[in-house]
Amino acid sequence: MAQLGTLVLLRHGQSTWNADNLFTGWVDVPLSETGQTEARKGGELLAGKGLLPDVVHTSLLRRAISTANIALDVADRHWIDVRRSWRLNERHYGALQGKNKKQVRDEFGEEQFMLWRRSYDVPPPEIERGSEFSQDTDPRYDADAPLTECLKDVVARLLPYWESAIVPDLRAGKTVLVAAHGNSLRALVKHLDGISDEAIAGLNIPTGIPLRYDLTEDLKPVTTGGEYLDPKAAEEAAAAVANQGR
Amino acid sequence: MAQLGTLVLLRHGQSTWNADNLFTGWVDVPLSETGQTEARKGGELLAGKGLLPDVVHTSLLRRAISTANIALDVADRHWIDVRRSWRLNERHYGALQGKNKKQVRDEFGEEQFMLWRRSYDVPPPEIERGSEFSQDTDPRYDADAPLTECLKDVVARLLPYWESAIVPDLRAGKTVLVAAHGNSLRALVKHLDGISDEAIAGLNIPTGIPLRYDLTEDLKPVTTGGEYLDPKAAEEAAAAVANQGR
Repeated sequence: MAQLGTLVLLRHGQSTWNADNLFTGWVDVPLSETGQTEARKGGELLAGKGLLPDVVHTSLLRRAISTANIALDVADRHWIDVRRSWRLNERHYGALQGKNKKQVRDEFGEEQFMLWRRSYDVPPPEIERGSEFSQDTDPRYDADAPLTECLKDVVARLLPYWESAIVPDLRAGKTVLVAAHGNSLRALVKHLDGISDEAIAGLNIPTGIPLRYDLTEDLKPVTTGGEYLDPKAAEEAAAAVANQGR
Repeated sequence: MAQLGTLVLLRHGQSTWNADNLFTGWVDVPLSETGQTEARKGGELLAGKGLLPDVVHTSLLRRAISTANIALDVADRHWIDVRRSWRLNERHYGALQGKNKKQVRDEFGEEQFMLWRRSYDVPPPEIERGSEFSQDTDPRYDADAPLTECLKDVVARLLPYWESAIVPDLRAGKTVLVAAHGNSLRALVKHLDGISDEAIAGLNIPTGIPLRYDLTEDLKPVTTGGEYLDPKAAEEAAAAVANQGR
C-alpha cells in the first residue's frame, strides 16, 4: 500500500504553570524560558533530520502556538500554512484548573488524584462559570464549550478534527506537524496505535521532542508508537513527566 | 451603505538588515531587538484600542510573520486564523538584494538610486540565478517567481490576493490584520486610496504602528489614508523612513 504524508507530533515544553506544578487545562499560560528552549530544540531536531513540515495544526492555547512558532522558525519553516482548533486543546481540567497538584493530592488522597489525572472516563468536577480560571467569557470558545473533561471526552472531540482536517493534509502527501498537549496527543496516539482504555493510563508523551508517525493508506502506523527524533531524550523525559505532582 | 469588517495594516519593524542599511527584498532576515519591541508596541496599540483581529494575513517572510506573532500574542489574539501568501512579500529588489544602500547611492548616483527606490515602473536589474541572495532554491517559491520587481509589479501580484483572500474576510465582517512590508502595503494603500503612479513615491508607511481602514460596501476608505492608532508616532516615524539611505 502507498504511504501517506508524514505525521509529526510535538508536545509543548514547560509552561510557567508546569514550573509551578499547577493544573492548567484551558488556562492560557505562556511557556517558561525552559519551555522556549525546548521548542528551539524541537525545531533543531526537525531541521537536523530533514523532517520539514508543510502545514502545522495547533490548539488555541499559547503554549502550543508559541512552541510551533519557535520550532518552525528554527527549522526555517515559519512560512508554512497554519490551522488551529480548540479540538487540539489540552484536556479541560474542570474545577482543578489553577490548583496546585501537590495540594490536590494531599487534600483528596493519592487514589482520587490518580483517578482525575489518569483514569479514562472520570472527569474532575465541573469548573464554576464565572470563576477565576474558567473560560466563560473567552471569545475563542462557544457557550457550549466543556466545563470539565476526562480523556474519553478529549478523544471524542479530537477525532472529528483528525478526520476532517488532519487526515486530508496527510492524504495530500504533506508532512503535517501537530503542536499540542499531553492529553490531546495521548488521545491521538491512543487512536492511532489502538491502545486500550486501560493501557493509555501508562503512556506519557515527553515534551519538546518531535514524534514521527509514518502511516499506511488505511491510517495505521508503520511502526507502532512512532519514532521519536531523539529516542534517548524521549526516554529520559517520559520518566520525568511520570513523576509530575510528586 | 453598510460597512464591512475593519482592515488593519501593520508594517514590520526594524530587521537586522534595516539596521545595517542593506537592501533586503525577499532575503529572509529576522527582526532586530528594536523590531521586536516595535511589534510588541503594535500589539499594545491593538489591545489598547480594542481593535482585535479575527484573522491575520502575512507574507512568507520572517520579519512580517514574527511581527504578527509578537503583536497578536501581546494583544491576546495569538489563536486567530492565519493566512500567508508570497503576494504580500516585500518588493523583490533584484540585483540590489544584499547591497548597502549608501554604497549603491555612491556608486550609481542619487538619481538612479531614487529611481530604483521610488519610481513606479523602473525595476532594478534582475538578480542572478544561483547568487548568494537569490531565492532560486527556496522551497516556498515557484520556479517562475520574480527576479526583480518595481512597485507596479507589486501592485499587479498583490491585487489578486486582495480580491480573492482578504476582501472575502472583510465581507464576512471580520477585523483583518495584514502584517507585511513597506512596498506591499504601499501597493495596497495606493489601490485603496486611489493614489496616482506619481504621488505614491511620496508615501511612506511607518513601521510598527497599526493603520486602520474602515471601508464602505464598495471597498472605498471611509477616511482617505486611514487612521493610525498612534498618529503622533506615525508622523515622526514616517519622517525617519524618508531619511533611509542617507
